[in-house]
Amino acid sequence: MKLLYPTSLKLDVESLKGFSVDLQPYDVKQELPENLIDADAMITWTNSPNNLKDAAGRMKNLKWIQSLAAGPNDVLSAGFDASKIKVTTGSGLHDWTVAEHTLGMLLAAARKFHEMRDYQTQGKWPQHLGGPQPDRPAGAFTSLRDANIVIWGFGNIGKTLAPWLTSLGANVKGLARSAGVRNGVEVYAEDKLSEILPKTDALVMILPGSEATKNALNAERLKQLPKHAWIVNVGRGTSIDEDALSKALDSGDIGGAALDVFQQEPLPGSSPLYKQKNVILSPHAAGGRPQGAEQLIADNLRKFMAGQELKNII
Amino acid sequence: MKLLYPTSLKLDVESLKGFSVDLQPYDVKQELPENLIDADAMITWTNSPNNLKDAAGRMKNLKWIQSLAAGPNDVLSAGFDASKIKVTTGSGLHDWTVAEHTLGMLLAAARKFHEMRDYQTQGKWPQHLGGPQPDRPAGAFTSLRDANIVIWGFGNIGKTLAPWLTSLGANVKGLARSAGVRNGVEVYAEDKLSEILPKTDALVMILPGSEATKNALNAERLKQLPKHAWIVNVGRGTSIDEDALSKALDSGDIGGAALDVFQQEPLPGSSPLYKQKNVILSPHAAGGRPQGAEQLIADNLRKFMAGQELKNII
Repeated sequence: MKLLYPTSLKLDVESLKGFSVDLQPYDVKQELPENLIDADAMITWTNSPNNLKDAAGRMKNLKWIQSLAAGPNDVLSAGFDASKIKVTTGSGLHDWTVAEHTLGMLLAAARKFHEMRDYQTQGKWPQHLGGPQPDRPAGAFTSLRDANIVIWGFGNIGKTLAPWLTSLGANVKGLARSAGVRNGVEVYAEDKLSEILPKTDALVMILPGSEATKNALNAERLKQLPKHAWIVNVGRGTSIDEDALSKALDSGDIGGAALDVFQQEPLPGSSPLYKQKNVILSPHAAGGRPQGAEQLIADNLRKFMAGQELKNII
Repeated sequence: MKLLYPTSLKLDVESLKGFSVDLQPYDVKQELPENLIDADAMITWTNSPNNLKDAAGRMKNLKWIQSLAAGPNDVLSAGFDASKIKVTTGSGLHDWTVAEHTLGMLLAAARKFHEMRDYQTQGKWPQHLGGPQPDRPAGAFTSLRDANIVIWGFGNIGKTLAPWLTSLGANVKGLARSAGVRNGVEVYAEDKLSEILPKTDALVMILPGSEATKNALNAERLKQLPKHAWIVNVGRGTSIDEDALSKALDSGDIGGAALDVFQQEPLPGSSPLYKQKNVILSPHAAGGRPQGAEQLIADNLRKFMAGQELKNII
């Protein structure tokens, strides 16, 4: 058996040894050389569309693709023969880093680091943001302590994030397709949105990209949020109606938005979001660095060799 | 007995009732009116120097001052008769909010929110900060996960902060005048500085202001830190030699600095810190909002009435 691993990230290849497998590195931005075309399995990470398309056409022996991305979109759209090839994703490898970024955005929003930065750039001291302050005044998001934080799209990232928020004093609720208590967090079904949103200080969106989640946060739902509420989006840009969000920001119907994902990326320079007050932008930077990839690959490689069901299979 | 409480913050006065005490509000920026001069006790918060000086001269019946600030400096310098008057501080009331701000600064530094903000202001997308990234590369502070974070001045704020950092995956150590294990954190004495600093990714300074801590972080100690290390200061500005810090930033001998306190506040517009790369400034905003003041006051009021030793007495 021959397994191709990408050179687009630092992998500890030593931790993949011990199987009767020929491990071969490959360049994810080039077409594969002849000697690698007969590989049985392939790990992908930031492959170019052309690399994947070429591989789909030429790799007649391929039986398994292990993507390190959270979703399989790039692999699926390359034209691999889904009836012959198992595809497994890197779901779970990005939970911690996305959750960390989200926590940073929530704290930056509450503590107004964006506003402080603007003063700093001008060489000015923002006196109104320092010194004696009201403690957690009503109608403002100034601290995670006692804040009502709702995680919409409560999956593995939410499960990593929630206990951090709780230890910082927040009241955490989840919103998902189905209700239940998950990892100690009360998760509500989306039919409870109209009850939950009006009591939300910060809405963290971690929805996957799909037709079902398109513009999930629309004008109507934005109106249901309190005027001081912040929105944090680290899921997919398509889940927010950006025009409606911009309008809500302009009219003061919403407290602010910290966004890592956008309907179009890079966010076009013409977007009003760049200049609107209380907007924190980050360039799809929450994930992008798989953590624990070797463990997942080795685990799935063992299962593959043993003919067992693979983890994260789509 | 007559107790004066300040109107400079929102206090839940109901939670101070139940004692045989006459509770009277007062304005901390004015001289006291005649009818309050005979008070036995006084709670202070953001009092003007003139208010305190006037009170020190005229309040002949005063036996106890409960400050809500972390330190008693303003009260002590007003000229009260320390042989007659007990002074208690608000130590502990600022732990949570300072720790929260510190965590926000650490995450902002690691996730480069300051740099993202500068691109946003210019209407630009910082491509190099998003998309695929190396995961926790050596020689960079990019995540709290697996980062070596040292809290210098390991008191109650450190005890609040440390478990949050630990749950985010950091290796937390303390530095203090005396060694020991406190709340599960290994705290080293300051004679170990030369061993600890070279292995530090982020140095959080929470030292009190005193002659002993003046310029505690000086040129020599800055040199002992790795070139990628960040410094976070939420203690007192006097504990850092700002000139040495600016030089270290200029020469790239240090990764960056997130500063909430300064040798002179407001930080003068002429300070190079405003314009230096990898500097995050906040205007003494970490604390400034006592939390749980009523509980401390009621507790100390009961002790005072019972003739017991007061909490936070200096």
